Amino acid sequence: MRDVTKENITDVFMGYMGPDMDPRLHEVLESLVRHLHDFAREVNLTHEEWNKGIEFLEAAGAISDKERHEFVLLSDVLGLSSLVDMLHSSPEGTSSSVLGPFHITGSPPLPVGGDLRKDFTEQVLLVEGVIKGPDGAPIPGATLDIWQTAPNGLYSSQDPDQDTYSFHGLQTVGADGRYGFTSVRPVEYTVPSDGPVGDILRACGRHPWRPSHLHFIVEADGFRPLVTEIFASDDPYLDEDTVFGVRRDLIMNYEEMEAGTFPEEGFELSGKVTDPYLKVRFDLTLVAAD
Amino acid sequence: MRDVTKENITDVFMGYMGPDMDPRLHEVLESLVRHLHDFAREVNLTHEEWNKGIEFLEAAGAISDKERHEFVLLSDVLGLSSLVDMLHSSPEGTSSSVLGPFHITGSPPLPVGGDLRKDFTEQVLLVEGVIKGPDGAPIPGATLDIWQTAPNGLYSSQDPDQDTYSFHGLQTVGADGRYGFTSVRPVEYTVPSDGPVGDILRACGRHPWRPSHLHFIVEADGFRPLVTEIFASDDPYLDEDTVFGVRRDLIMNYEEMEAGTFPEEGFELSGKVTDPYLKVRFDLTLVAAD
Repeated sequence: MRDVTKENITDVFMGYMGPDMDPRLHEVLESLVRHLHDFAREVNLTHEEWNKGIEFLEAAGAISDKERHEFVLLSDVLGLSSLVDMLHSSPEGTSSSVLGPFHITGSPPLPVGGDLRKDFTEQVLLVEGVIKGPDGAPIPGATLDIWQTAPNGLYSSQDPDQDTYSFHGLQTVGADGRYGFTSVRPVEYTVPSDGPVGDILRACGRHPWRPSHLHFIVEADGFRPLVTEIFASDDPYLDEDTVFGVRRDLIMNYEEMEAGTFPEEGFELSGKVTDPYLKVRFDLTLVAAD
Repeated sequence: MRDVTKENITDVFMGYMGPDMDPRLHEVLESLVRHLHDFAREVNLTHEEWNKGIEFLEAAGAISDKERHEFVLLSDVLGLSSLVDMLHSSPEGTSSSVLGPFHITGSPPLPVGGDLRKDFTEQVLLVEGVIKGPDGAPIPGATLDIWQTAPNGLYSSQDPDQDTYSFHGLQTVGADGRYGFTSVRPVEYTVPSDGPVGDILRACGRHPWRPSHLHFIVEADGFRPLVTEIFASDDPYLDEDTVFGVRRDLIMNYEEMEAGTFPEEGFELSGKVTDPYLKVRFDLTLVAAD
């Protein structure tokens, strides 16, 4: 094309596409490149700014490895990850929320009522609820993959002082759909801000904090898998999660329970908790698979 | 923000910006993220597609180094580089075109009339013209940085068999603004297609070819620097440059010159060229600096 102009270059680009191209790729790429070109035209992007963008992408690539996923973090802090979650979240079920980079596979089985707190000495937290369908009926055999920070704000994969599966467990519920475990209250933490994405946050006058949360992946035959997190109603960062993960239906309350009220049975710690403890009740609703 | 939705997330994102942010960064980021979110909403981007995008960016980062600039190549084949060129190209001057990854600094001085062909045996090419302002007046003292492929289709930086500055030269014009040199005809070549950007080209049914061209950077005091390329009117890829660099005013003709007509003076090869040769006449127009 020898008559390419700043007005027609998007059409020229699409004219290059071959006839056997996958139709969905064609649709996605057309929209992506039209928006990219519209952006450049709209702000009259300069060569210097273009250069800064290239340098940013190269720096994000250079800091990335199997453990560090700077492009995921970029997507998270730009709200793209949460937008994709919301696009595919059903209003009939519990909202999904970002998976984040700290999930690990192979968590050990955790019986219903099992304990994740182990040798930590912080106040006991009891979490329980029912995994159910949109009709409210429990889903027997559903699995709940659970992970959270230790009291120091670190996930096990970030912390050489924790065992690999510290504060990780995989629970399978029975006929009543009930899940339950003991742990400690997770704490708020910062996303990694020592790289190019951190530079963006600083340039925007943004902090890198996330409100504290419990991570869940819920799966059951015939239902859409649910990747989500639940957040404390009293968390200082609830209204400013730097990765936009909070949804109103994912907010839970920590109930302060008096000494001597811990359940006498059904939990691994039954009979062992004599102090006041915290309790969260949160049901999880799955929707039918597509 | 606990009421973030797929409709309001762009506004929530902008609400996170601090009061002391650079106004231009605010403008650029708002446009970029609004287009990014609009894209995701428009195509209803799935988690699987999002994952493929992240994998693509990580692969582009992993293949990049000081020599290999996969994100520049991505920008080139998506037409973004050329769009930025066109946004800042003045209609009063010669069009700009992509710099490309093969420019190297420090090219040796090449007197007006000097030779770049050296020991190569391909047909002699004579290139000449005038560097002038929009009013047609020559620009004394303008410099012309020249680089091109060898006959094997490789730039010196890609080819261990060529000297560092093979087919590179820096010419300073005199009072008449006239530049001139001898060389050989450059050849068409492919952009690197062994990486993730090559995968995109293949998925789109696109080839990686560029039409042959001579690269120029023209600079003069008081004028805007011009980064450009000129293309042969008979090149098979003229209408399908994979990086969108061709502009109508950058097309030149190779004139077939009869034996015995080579200029008797003014060129390093004067008196030495007895065979038929090729001639290109191309003037370069600079516009005043901003």
